[in-house]
Amino acid sequence: MFPPLCQGSKGNSMGSLPRVSLLLLVLNVFLLTGPSVQAGKIMVFPVDGSHWVNMNLLIQNLHARGHEVTVVRTATSWYVKESAPHYRSITVTLPQAIVIEKEDFFVNFLIKMLEIKREGSVTGFVKFYWEMLNALSDIHKQASLLGVEIFENKTLMQNIRDTQFDMVLIDPGLPVGVLVAHELKLPTVYNVRWITSGEGHFVVAPSPSSYVPTSAHPVTDKMTFIQKVKNMLFYFLNTCIDKFIVCPHYDRLVDKYFGPDVKFYHLLQGADIWLMRVDFVFEFPRPTMPNIAYIGGFQCKPSKPLSKELEVFVQSSGEHGVILMSLGTLVKGLPTDITSEIAAVFAQLPQKVIWRHLGERPSNLGNNTLLVKWMPQNDLLGHPKIKAFVAHGGTNGVYESIYHGVPIIGIPLLFDQFENILRLEARGAARVVDAAKLTRQNFLEAVQDVLNNPSYRNNMKRLSAIHRDKPMPPLDTAVYWIEFVMRHKGAAHLRTESYKMPWYSYYSVDVIAFMLAILLMLTAAAVGFIRFICLQLCMKRKSKQE
Amino acid sequence: MFPPLCQGSKGNSMGSLPRVSLLLLVLNVFLLTGPSVQAGKIMVFPVDGSHWVNMNLLIQNLHARGHEVTVVRTATSWYVKESAPHYRSITVTLPQAIVIEKEDFFVNFLIKMLEIKREGSVTGFVKFYWEMLNALSDIHKQASLLGVEIFENKTLMQNIRDTQFDMVLIDPGLPVGVLVAHELKLPTVYNVRWITSGEGHFVVAPSPSSYVPTSAHPVTDKMTFIQKVKNMLFYFLNTCIDKFIVCPHYDRLVDKYFGPDVKFYHLLQGADIWLMRVDFVFEFPRPTMPNIAYIGGFQCKPSKPLSKELEVFVQSSGEHGVILMSLGTLVKGLPTDITSEIAAVFAQLPQKVIWRHLGERPSNLGNNTLLVKWMPQNDLLGHPKIKAFVAHGGTNGVYESIYHGVPIIGIPLLFDQFENILRLEARGAARVVDAAKLTRQNFLEAVQDVLNNPSYRNNMKRLSAIHRDKPMPPLDTAVYWIEFVMRHKGAAHLRTESYKMPWYSYYSVDVIAFMLAILLMLTAAAVGFIRFICLQLCMKRKSKQE
Repeated sequence: MFPPLCQGSKGNSMGSLPRVSLLLLVLNVFLLTGPSVQAGKIMVFPVDGSHWVNMNLLIQNLHARGHEVTVVRTATSWYVKESAPHYRSITVTLPQAIVIEKEDFFVNFLIKMLEIKREGSVTGFVKFYWEMLNALSDIHKQASLLGVEIFENKTLMQNIRDTQFDMVLIDPGLPVGVLVAHELKLPTVYNVRWITSGEGHFVVAPSPSSYVPTSAHPVTDKMTFIQKVKNMLFYFLNTCIDKFIVCPHYDRLVDKYFGPDVKFYHLLQGADIWLMRVDFVFEFPRPTMPNIAYIGGFQCKPSKPLSKELEVFVQSSGEHGVILMSLGTLVKGLPTDITSEIAAVFAQLPQKVIWRHLGERPSNLGNNTLLVKWMPQNDLLGHPKIKAFVAHGGTNGVYESIYHGVPIIGIPLLFDQFENILRLEARGAARVVDAAKLTRQNFLEAVQDVLNNPSYRNNMKRLSAIHRDKPMPPLDTAVYWIEFVMRHKGAAHLRTESYKMPWYSYYSVDVIAFMLAILLMLTAAAVGFIRFICLQLCMKRKSKQE
Repeated sequence: MFPPLCQGSKGNSMGSLPRVSLLLLVLNVFLLTGPSVQAGKIMVFPVDGSHWVNMNLLIQNLHARGHEVTVVRTATSWYVKESAPHYRSITVTLPQAIVIEKEDFFVNFLIKMLEIKREGSVTGFVKFYWEMLNALSDIHKQASLLGVEIFENKTLMQNIRDTQFDMVLIDPGLPVGVLVAHELKLPTVYNVRWITSGEGHFVVAPSPSSYVPTSAHPVTDKMTFIQKVKNMLFYFLNTCIDKFIVCPHYDRLVDKYFGPDVKFYHLLQGADIWLMRVDFVFEFPRPTMPNIAYIGGFQCKPSKPLSKELEVFVQSSGEHGVILMSLGTLVKGLPTDITSEIAAVFAQLPQKVIWRHLGERPSNLGNNTLLVKWMPQNDLLGHPKIKAFVAHGGTNGVYESIYHGVPIIGIPLLFDQFENILRLEARGAARVVDAAKLTRQNFLEAVQDVLNNPSYRNNMKRLSAIHRDKPMPPLDTAVYWIEFVMRHKGAAHLRTESYKMPWYSYYSVDVIAFMLAILLMLTAAAVGFIRFICLQLCMKRKSKQE
């Protein structure tokens, strides 16, 4: 059933071949709700870290529907295991591990950023930003080598060809899969929010900077004039980062393997379906495209009962209820002086607190606070006793909060977390506290505001009701479009190829220039004619007078 | 159950109050598939003619789901009956009937247009175009008076208020309902393809003229440079028609009833949900918005068995099969010399022909051709013996053809029909014959090409398969979003209000001007500084030399 994909010469190894459970297959016959679909062969290019959590869920569902999934991973992968019951893997050994595959990378990054923010030194910030750009370039350089390893390994390529995949599922944060799909002439589906260096929409849909906040610019869709100016500058900056820092690494591969007629950016823009991890209870309304399907919150599910011990702790909170705190994968990154302030605030509250915490235990921890290394976050968020969630604003936590209607006190730390929390704040469902400026006073004030002002909870409940009210649940939507692409060998009818035009043509600069030129010529001709007539008349009058 | 809406002083009459069938209500309990919804009260502003066919179908479904539907109609309405089992009506008597409520309007229009096209005289065309613009202005002037009649009739308005409608469903081709919804502060849903003077998307979504064909400009999404120039000119023309011919009639009403702070165009743009009668197997891919739901082809349904006589006729065609011909509501408009050419071609074919024809019987009609005054078009199109459809390209017929996979020989006559057929032609599923230039030769050639070249049928079958493959059938999608708007009292989270910005702000002209000014000032300052330094140096050198 699974044709053998042999190992490459550079130590590529093949993951275990899972046995498709007969029971699952039989169940699927009953569960199949969409149009019938042949079991397909799907090649997956994931991104490591928290992105994988989402991709893995999608793969589990595809496997449960009877599809064969093959995940391309690096030998040094942090989250993506070599073997799993629901997929097999192609393991590629890179000359050097991709830095984001190391957990410490993000933690160190966070510690450094907080330091610089607290110092408030401009040169420090510029230096840090420069280092960040270098890191970004390194990440994509290392990731692009995955493409080289695959293309140069003739045995592996032949085995991939022989497998006759039906499509490629890609997280285009690291877009090597796009090149492999082009080589194999296979349709592609993206599981995407971030792509190369910005938010996915910016690559595929019109994004008027007058009301669409640019990636990394934390503003709402109603901007002041100065915010609009900054928004456009951020847009230029992101475009430059994409053009000069990220894409050149992939351009080199495209030049080498596909020749000068193929442009990497066009390949990137040309996915059949964009499964966008966005929902409009969260994102501000903005232009979109027919081949974008929204699957924001597809990982959310009803909560399960808690363990006996946890249930006892939660119930002991009485009428006051419980506050959750978790900073996701960055859980280790908060300096002790900040955690100490947080602990002091928690100690003053009548609520109980469950805090996912690693590292040194704050000395001033109250009796009401339970420190845990891991918690069943979704099950807790769905528990009626939970009153608020202190979170860093990673997408998964944000969507789980929306799904269960729990208001957030946000301590955004890195990347999109600032924008994420801002979106909930704009809807009156969250309060933000700046980690670099967090004090006992402002944190307490924020927590008490969210606990005591019912508007936060009501707004989040309203968002939750809207979020859950969809023609099709987002996870089913994702599976539907993946199978659609396999059924019809792509989705060309939904995908414009207008991006292949040069920019001046796309924005009609050429047409406007042509029309202005015509207008100018006509005006000049008219003026010339009138001058000529006037001159003639003057000459006549003169000759008469003479 | 239905509160009485009394008649107005100017002879407004109230339609019969239908009894909601108990059986239907019980059935609905079982059929209700979406989230539970309270039976709602829906006010409907339809457009007469073929538009009503679609709206009526939607209303039937809303009624079957237990909602109370009230249709606002004029006393002179052509299609919208005063009483029906599935709705009640508010009938408003206008000082003058809206001209499109008369069937003859379109037929006369067609006859005149064909005459001018055949003459090929430019002055004739300009004169005709001018008359058309006048007619357009008249239509909207007459339609806007519907608003005056409603607003001025205090008893009617009070009764409407007392009914406590939950939402307003509008065909914004004639957009008076938008004003009534604003007055009642009710959420709105559009059932739309054409709005005021153009295609709906142009009012609500970015529409780059470099690849989005403008309304009334029959080109594909891949244009030559000259086509792009024309496309932009058409865009300007449509904007001018909207601004100077259509909207002023409604602006007057808005000024009178809502004051200077409210803009009619903003009300028009502000619908909660746009149920767009478009599908991307038909329309070229283009930018869209989160509050647009696509319901193109929602009227299509599986075919039912034919009557015995018709089945016998169809079966008598043997292996050659049957050709259908119908020009929809314009069936009477084709001059006899053209129908005679068509009849001659049909007479030569081995196929049988079923031709929906009113008026004089062509003298040269073949034995293989059956003339009918009406035909069960959908049931015929779904019959396996039907080989091709000779159609004018009205939307309903086009979508029925797509649904059943029957290729088209298009004889577009008016309005959007040229664009509609062109879209199918671009996908290799139709041939076009210009009615004004139709001859025995070119019509025969087109029919034989579609019959004998299997690519037309294969392409249409492919479109059909894609069209039918949707997460939710389009009619259910329409009902879903109407109920969504009632459940959540609108869909503000999907609707941008960016259109309220002035155009220069929306297109960031202000921001770009500001940035250019800053750049200019900085350059000037730098140049000034350099000149100053140079001058100083020169002076020093000079004084040294002296």
